[in-house]
Amino acid sequence: MTTTPEAIDLLIEARWIAAVAPDVVLKNHAVAIRDGRILAVLPGSEARQRYLPDQRVTLEDHVLIPGLVNLHTHAAMSLMRGMADDLPLHDWLQKRIWPAEAAHVSAQFVYDGTRLACAEMLKGGITCFNDMYFFPEAAATAAREYGMRATLGITTLEFPTTYASDADDYLNKGLAVREKLLNQPLINFCLAPHAPYTVSDGTFERVLTLSEQLNLPIHCHIHETRQEIEDGQRQNGLAPLERLHQLGLLGPSFIGVHAVHLSEGELQLLAETGSSIAHCPTSNLKLASGFAPVARMRQLGINVGLGTDGAASNNRLDLFGEMRLAALLAKGSTGDASVLPANEVLRMATLNGAIALGLGDEIGSITPGKAADLCAVSLGAIESKPCFDPVSHLVHVAGRECVTHVWVAGKCCVDHKTLHPADQNDLESTIALWQNRLEVRWEA
Amino acid sequence: MTTTPEAIDLLIEARWIAAVAPDVVLKNHAVAIRDGRILAVLPGSEARQRYLPDQRVTLEDHVLIPGLVNLHTHAAMSLMRGMADDLPLHDWLQKRIWPAEAAHVSAQFVYDGTRLACAEMLKGGITCFNDMYFFPEAAATAAREYGMRATLGITTLEFPTTYASDADDYLNKGLAVREKLLNQPLINFCLAPHAPYTVSDGTFERVLTLSEQLNLPIHCHIHETRQEIEDGQRQNGLAPLERLHQLGLLGPSFIGVHAVHLSEGELQLLAETGSSIAHCPTSNLKLASGFAPVARMRQLGINVGLGTDGAASNNRLDLFGEMRLAALLAKGSTGDASVLPANEVLRMATLNGAIALGLGDEIGSITPGKAADLCAVSLGAIESKPCFDPVSHLVHVAGRECVTHVWVAGKCCVDHKTLHPADQNDLESTIALWQNRLEVRWEA
Repeated sequence: MTTTPEAIDLLIEARWIAAVAPDVVLKNHAVAIRDGRILAVLPGSEARQRYLPDQRVTLEDHVLIPGLVNLHTHAAMSLMRGMADDLPLHDWLQKRIWPAEAAHVSAQFVYDGTRLACAEMLKGGITCFNDMYFFPEAAATAAREYGMRATLGITTLEFPTTYASDADDYLNKGLAVREKLLNQPLINFCLAPHAPYTVSDGTFERVLTLSEQLNLPIHCHIHETRQEIEDGQRQNGLAPLERLHQLGLLGPSFIGVHAVHLSEGELQLLAETGSSIAHCPTSNLKLASGFAPVARMRQLGINVGLGTDGAASNNRLDLFGEMRLAALLAKGSTGDASVLPANEVLRMATLNGAIALGLGDEIGSITPGKAADLCAVSLGAIESKPCFDPVSHLVHVAGRECVTHVWVAGKCCVDHKTLHPADQNDLESTIALWQNRLEVRWEA
Repeated sequence: MTTTPEAIDLLIEARWIAAVAPDVVLKNHAVAIRDGRILAVLPGSEARQRYLPDQRVTLEDHVLIPGLVNLHTHAAMSLMRGMADDLPLHDWLQKRIWPAEAAHVSAQFVYDGTRLACAEMLKGGITCFNDMYFFPEAAATAAREYGMRATLGITTLEFPTTYASDADDYLNKGLAVREKLLNQPLINFCLAPHAPYTVSDGTFERVLTLSEQLNLPIHCHIHETRQEIEDGQRQNGLAPLERLHQLGLLGPSFIGVHAVHLSEGELQLLAETGSSIAHCPTSNLKLASGFAPVARMRQLGINVGLGTDGAASNNRLDLFGEMRLAALLAKGSTGDASVLPANEVLRMATLNGAIALGLGDEIGSITPGKAADLCAVSLGAIESKPCFDPVSHLVHVAGRECVTHVWVAGKCCVDHKTLHPADQNDLESTIALWQNRLEVRWEA
């Protein structure tokens, strides 16, 4: 009996598929894609019989993984990459970053910086980023040009910047952009109160109300440094995390960024409330904030995703680097080499990030029904050989330079390591211009 | 007045040159090379007048650095890359690595594994490696084929392996290979007693005598785990480092590998004796050994170089990764973001390693008179832009994938990211064969 092959848009065959959910590695399987969604995951031989694809991609030496989810970044800050090294967080922020932002940040800065970030992230296999910055409409335009999925922060602070004057102004501007872009399928929003030390109780209350009304996640820096905790205790009589809890912020919609310094009680609180954490290991070390207790978080069942933070404190938007560092730090800091095995780290960089963003049913794993956000990683180079376990290699051997193809909602954004749109000349000259401007400011 | 240009072999012009000694970054300078040595470092415009080179290389977006020195590896173990993840050191060694070695290690294994390691290291900018393994003649043959500089360990243990029967047998075999290869300009030797827990006092004494007679460095694992220190204290009544000191081993010829767990007194001892340390941050975390007190070592003036360790515990032979991790860990573990700035980390990966090997006058910096061991790193990709400081970018932004050209003693080993000899097909099929053999053993 012969059946007529079914027409589909794209069939990707790969040596290995690390599906994440379920947590399996399939050999010589294929992913069938139609209308931007994963239709089926099945053996390659069967797929060739069953489907008639418009396009076929065969990945002979590759492992296909879900597109990586960058759970915390300030994309536009890529224009300030490496501009302020070797400084502790407060000096870094107050002496370098905030003055530079005051002098330069505009819609154009955000558009150009976010294009740079999108180019870097896509080439490195990141298909979705959770952004906290200003002028979100400019960031959305950049993400759309690159075909990237983004959750944009409705960023809120009490003090004025070039973008807005006070907390209400930030919120109102962000909400207006959200309204305007409701029909953009790859663009989502979250509320992004910057941090407990920059946002008042009243603003947090308004953020909570909006989160409940509009079903939006809340994305907030928390317990990054000891100083912030001590200051909070002095000013409010309680630690920032406890303050947020009393205000009702913690819960499945809450994404706490960094969470480096936590007591056992605070860890329990995060677990009990179902809060998520965006772990940013490079940034935490580079700014000397410390080591987040990720192994304990995972033990308690806290949902932990991975973030790069902005390129001014990392200085790469590279989730392969963050995966490796997260695994290494968890082992080194607990003294237990079995902690955070590779499959769990891969889940952190994909599905856990998606869950934190409320997108757990949409992305984060190679599962039929989900959007086809995919990343192909070549393990064919001499540096990756031999290979006894492709998931171990993803974390401990491969780098972002091994990414060859990236799809977002079934659309190819990186093809044989080349970005679509391929023309980066305009972007390069634009960055050179910003560098010149920022250098003047910096050297002044 | 016109002067006749001087004939040279090679002129490399680069946008930036990070010389390491002196610690400067030169813009638009050139390196003139004759007979494998650096003749001069001078402005590009001047160089074009003064020299008539056989060959010219222009590096428009690059920073030229000294070839990286990998101060600790077990090169041939690359064949076991990722074969034993998520295990603590003692289980890793006793349950996985030693049994696999007993079943497989031979001169052919070492030759093939070292070729794999050389290919990986050269492509990543490493021009010299300090090796501790068996069958050093096979390793020398591999290094010579790739044109790589190597210091090969005259490895010594008390117990038998497929290579030798007892400590004297190891030493005698190693010394015989050294004799045989004395005329190889790129091959050097060091004494490599494996570790205090595998080598007796008597053998250490013979090692010391040989080191003094032949002017060879001593390369030895030390204080990698707490268990090793506790065991040593129980068995010998003193910590392993103190034991080596009483035996007279510590001194400018001594390279202690790992040195994770050290008291303040032990740190002082290392400083006072002028011993060197090979810091292997990835391996220390992956095997959950801990965080070496590198910031304190540098404060005390201890010479610290960087090592990758073997690919079975890393799983990359990548000094760019080790540079970044060393910088990040020093900041994170001291809580001081200003510790270990980028120029110091670059020095660790180059000149400090050379000094430890007794090659401080020969390699490790771009200094007239030294061998032309050089590495060109492109900062032209979008991921590296903008660039305010090329040395910061070397550590915090670039990866080994940015290496485009590598020279050892003036001879080009990597040209536009392609290895010389370019034919890797034979190597690839050889690795596939070893993988099949090792998998049988592993799954048994």
